[in-house]
Parts: sequence; structure tokens; C-alpha cells
Amino acid sequence: MKFVAEALGLSESAARKLEERSILRKAVINHPFFQDIINAYALEKKFGGYEDGTFVAKTVNGLEVVRGYPKIRRALTLYPTLKKHFSGEVALEEKMNGYNVRILQFGRRIYAVTRRGFVCPYTTEKARIIFDTDFFRDNPELMLCCEGVGEESPFVPKPVYGKKIDFYVFDIREKRTNKPLSIEDKSKTAEEYGLKLAPVLQIVDAEHAHEAVADEIKKLGKKGREGVVVKDVNMKQPPVKYTTSQSNCADLSYAFRYFNEYAKDFMISRIVREAFQSLEFGDDSEAFKNRCLRLGESILRSMVESIEDVKRRGRVAEKMRLRFYNLDVFELFREHIRRMGVDARFSEPVEEDGYVVFMERPMMSTSDKIASLLKGGFW
Amino acid sequence: MKFVAEALGLSESAARKLEERSILRKAVINHPFFQDIINAYALEKKFGGYEDGTFVAKTVNGLEVVRGYPKIRRALTLYPTLKKHFSGEVALEEKMNGYNVRILQFGRRIYAVTRRGFVCPYTTEKARIIFDTDFFRDNPELMLCCEGVGEESPFVPKPVYGKKIDFYVFDIREKRTNKPLSIEDKSKTAEEYGLKLAPVLQIVDAEHAHEAVADEIKKLGKKGREGVVVKDVNMKQPPVKYTTSQSNCADLSYAFRYFNEYAKDFMISRIVREAFQSLEFGDDSEAFKNRCLRLGESILRSMVESIEDVKRRGRVAEKMRLRFYNLDVFELFREHIRRMGVDARFSEPVEEDGYVVFMERPMMSTSDKIASLLKGGFW
Repeated sequence: MKFVAEALGLSESAARKLEERSILRKAVINHPFFQDIINAYALEKKFGGYEDGTFVAKTVNGLEVVRGYPKIRRALTLYPTLKKHFSGEVALEEKMNGYNVRILQFGRRIYAVTRRGFVCPYTTEKARIIFDTDFFRDNPELMLCCEGVGEESPFVPKPVYGKKIDFYVFDIREKRTNKPLSIEDKSKTAEEYGLKLAPVLQIVDAEHAHEAVADEIKKLGKKGREGVVVKDVNMKQPPVKYTTSQSNCADLSYAFRYFNEYAKDFMISRIVREAFQSLEFGDDSEAFKNRCLRLGESILRSMVESIEDVKRRGRVAEKMRLRFYNLDVFELFREHIRRMGVDARFSEPVEEDGYVVFMERPMMSTSDKIASLLKGGFW
Repeated sequence: MKFVAEALGLSESAARKLEERSILRKAVINHPFFQDIINAYALEKKFGGYEDGTFVAKTVNGLEVVRGYPKIRRALTLYPTLKKHFSGEVALEEKMNGYNVRILQFGRRIYAVTRRGFVCPYTTEKARIIFDTDFFRDNPELMLCCEGVGEESPFVPKPVYGKKIDFYVFDIREKRTNKPLSIEDKSKTAEEYGLKLAPVLQIVDAEHAHEAVADEIKKLGKKGREGVVVKDVNMKQPPVKYTTSQSNCADLSYAFRYFNEYAKDFMISRIVREAFQSLEFGDDSEAFKNRCLRLGESILRSMVESIEDVKRRGRVAEKMRLRFYNLDVFELFREHIRRMGVDARFSEPVEEDGYVVFMERPMMSTSDKIASLLKGGFW
């Protein structure tokens, strides 16, 4: 805790208090797999100038402060929001649908830190295969902010990106300050080191960005993709995101599948997005009908599936296929999930290009509610 | 307050405490229109053996305690719920879609008390036209539990029941004990005094009630009606309600029109009902598609309308047409609404078969949220 106080410029007793209030939490499991990290803590809430998800570590290289990834605000209307928020040129980047990780190097090894600021064994194992250390050797002060995507994701499984976990870099930032590279510098750097970037779809003037985003969103929607992040090319303004109808509906589908676990706000906000998009995109009566059907189906079909699951198997659960290359990492990941407070069950590993494991998260609140209603309980 | 204490069997200081905590609230406006009531209080929360909405009055006839109308539980599945809950014969009554009022007589006049336990000037005026006092002369200990329906409703305006306010009796109960008449006695009494009853659709054995209700619900849905209340013919078991898909969707339409004022739970519960009904009714793929479309449209169309209202007029408001026969009653109703804490604006009365007045309730939370998003605010 002493090193955290030193790194964040706090008194040791102030740091202790943060730990007692669970604002600072141990962020790494002590294990040779993470041998370059002597100890680490995650900041679970915004504190002082530090974003939540900030990671503070004592490593073989000394003290490290890795800033949390800032929240990106969401536009509900493209016009006038983008025009008002930006000036000059903006880049429209594809928003990949996965989980946010920061890829870093400590000592001679690559590490993956989750949005919340914890070292993830599963993601670290994959990142060590995909990233080499050249970039970090030349840029020790930088981190790669990536979207971890793919079907074999422990957090946001999406087959549309392929089976195995992959990473798309969307920002390159200074670890210590969170200062991002400009779009141009990021692109050059990515090319130089062979990093896969979240695609830059267009560079346009902010005045016309709303039209360009609408065009891209329609195209991305048809491909089942998530949306667009609009960024000032110099990264001087905070970025703004906007999503496809298909992605809003996929979120709803997920939320209603486990309706008693998920916050109602999550549901309402996505429905509001659809209403604003319908008006802004000027849906004709057929487009509107399709949007209503898509919305209604995304909600109802997944709820019906959950009821059927409870009827047949007594419960509803989220099931993910994971792949490990080292069984130690599997054990570390189990421990990581346990520490995150997630209730999950794992199948026995089966050898197949590494080891395939199924992770099941029983959704007890939804399961119990449905079971009680099926038995003739009242709402 | 002394008479309330006496009526409920409390100490005067206990009654005062209930008033300080706003559990007891003044339930009548002092005015010659209500001249038979010297004073009255409503119980805003369940207390002791008394239901919320219990009305306690000092009247020209003496002390009166009028019990609050009990909540009716809702089945999400017809089978096994009805079979489990009932035995013997049950009556399937149509559930009318309006507002719950208790019709009573004090002195020589009729009074209408709302669900919450307040004397409503608007409803009282209409009830005095529709009900005569024969029934109460012969049965001073009873009350008529009615649904107030129609387009000119200040609370639940539904044109499907016609323009002017009308009343359907669904229970006849002892004021003091809440003891209901059996279905047969209720029907006989209604016939004798020419009371309009909520239609009794079928009398069936509880074993088969789930099938009978499903049939009736499908028919009622097509007519845009609300649903069914299942009642033990002897009224020995609490009744159970079940609603049509069309009614669930109409509720959603309303809730999403004013999405920032309405509790999220209201929305989710209605969606859950649709999922259970879809499975229980065995929707084929076309029926399921229609249900999804109906659900999606009910949600999206009303939200789009609200956004358009804010674009055009700066705000979204609920507008009702009301009719008064006496301008004093209009003034009393304004005061009643104000006391209920409802923000409403009224148009100037226009003479037309009495006086027509429009009541507008601005929905400020939804209006402000939409306005901010339209101006380019973030979610």
C-alpha cells in the first residue's frame, strides 16, 4: 500500500482508507505468470485526477501508474451533437464490439489490464501471443488501448469477429498521463509495428460529420457491427460514440435474456436510442416497421428463450467457450473471476488447439423469478 | 382527527402521528357540493388491518369507515396459476380499463371515492347523474365498487368505452368490513336495481379456467379490451387478473410516451407478460411475428411522437377532454388535482352539453430530457 501512496501522491493512511472502502483493490494474482509485477492495485472509483480503472503497480521496472480509460460519451442525435462538439477534421472509426483492455509491457512480458484495472490472465495469455515487444521497447511510456473481440471472449462473446480472441488498437496513449497520439501518429505507428487498428472509415469535416456517420452506420448495421467513434484528428476533444440499430437491439436481446439481473436503465436507454435514430434517419413506413419488428423481436425472443430454458433445465445461464494454452492460466482465470465476484462454473478442459473450457454463469435472479412464475406465483 | 382515532380504534396521538407522516391525509374539500361530509381522511398506506385507500369520514349520518379496495394479484401464467389458486367454480369477468372508484351514499347524496381514498368532485358529479339512491336506501351498509371508464376520464381516458364517463360495477362490498357479495348475489342485486355490471363472461370449473380464460382473452384482445378477472363464485378466494396483449402494449405505449416520468418497473413487467403469454398461447411463427411487431410499435411509435412533440411545441403533455355540468365542480376538481400534487393546466370552459374543459399535464421530465438530447446533449 506504501507504493500506491507514493505513486498517487497520497499519505499512506489516505491510501489505507481507500483500501478499506474498497476503492483500491488488489489487481494482480501473485504467480510466476505475472512475475514482472511485484504488486498492483486498481482504483475502482474516480479519485482526484485519476480515472476509475487506474492501475498502480510496483514492477521490476519500478512504480507504474496506468491511467484508466476515459468514458466515451454517446450522441443520441448526430445533428446537432457532432457539429456542436467538434470543429475542424474528425476521424470516424469503427467501434468494435468487445471489451476494453490496455496492453502494456512490464519487465520483458506483455500484460493485459481490463477496463476496471485488473490484470486478466485470459487476456494476457492471448495478448502475449498476438503482440510482440518491439513497440514497447521503442515506446516504454505508451500503452495500446484495444478492444478484445471474438467468440471465445469471457466477457463479450461475438462470433462476428471470428472464433479466437483478437485485438484492435483504437488509441495509443501515454500510460502516466492518458495523453493520446493523434489519429495520424497512431496510424503511422500501427503501420510501423504491424498493429491491427480499429478501422478509420473516413476523415471528414465536423460540419458534415453527421451525414457521414449516418451513412457509415447504415452500412455497419447491415454487417451486424456495433457503430462509430468520432474523434478529433488531433485528439484534442473527447471522442463521441454512436451505435447501429442492430447493436442496440443486440444489447436489448442480451438484457432481456437475463432481465432480472440487468439494470432497467440499460434497457430504456437503448430503446430511446432507437426512437431518436428512427426520426433522424427519416424512416419511411417500411423502414419503421422493420425497426419495430427488430426491436420487438430482440426483446421478446430472448425472454421467451429464457422461460424455455427454465422450463427445460430449471435455470437460465450464460455459456461461453474459452480456450487456454496453459492450464496454469485456466487456474489463474478461475481465481480472477472469483475475485471479481462473478459466480461461474467451468467444464473440464478438453485438449483441442490448447484446451477448450466452457464457462457458465447461472443467472439466478432471472431463473428464480421465472421458476416462481411458472409454478403459478404472482408477479 | 379525533373522529379518525375513534373510527379506527387508535389513540388521538397515534392518529396525529399518522397525519404528520402523511399517512392520513384530508380527503374532502369543504364545500356545499360535499355537504353531507363534515370531514374525512384517507389512509395513504396500509395500516393495521386497513387497506391503503381506506376512507374515514364524519358525516351527517355519523362515523363512516370505508375500506380500501384490495389489490388484485396478477397471473403471468394461466396454468398452473388458476388451478392452484382456485377450486370449485369460478366466474370470468371482463376487466374494464378505467379507474377504480367506490360509490357510496352519505346523507341524501351519492359520493365517489377514488382508489387512494379521496372524494373526487369530477366523478361524484357523474355518479350522481348515473346512480340513484334506491340501492343505498335499501343497503346502507354496502358500497358499489366500480370502474369509471370512457374517453372523458381525467385519469384513464379510453375512447373504446364511449365518450362520456360511465360506471361498471364489479364488486358489491360491505363498506366497513370489505366483505363482498357472491357472484350470484351481486348479479341479482344488479338486476334488481338496474346496475350496470362488468360482464360475467363465463362460469367454469377452476380445473379448466386456464383454457376458458385464454379463449376469452383472445376474443377481448381483438376488441381492444383489457382482460379478465377470475373470481371464486363465492368470493372466498382473492380474485386474480390476466390481461390481453393489446392492453399490455397500450400500457407500454403510454409508458414510453412519457418515458422519463414512468417507473422502469412498469415497462419491464408488461414486457415479461408478453413473453409468458406468447409461450402459453403457443404462438406460431406468424402470431409471434405479429406480437413482436405490436410490442415494438407500441414502444417506438409513442416515443417518436414524444420527440416530435418536443421538436414542434417544446414539450410533451397528456391532454384530456373533460365535461362538467356545474362550474363549481370544475373549480373543486382543480383544487382536488392540486391537492393530489398533479401539475395540470386547464382550458377555459366552453359550453357544450355542460362545459367542455381540456386538462393538460405537462410531462416535464420527459420534455426536458428530449429537449436536451435534441440540442446535442449526451445521454
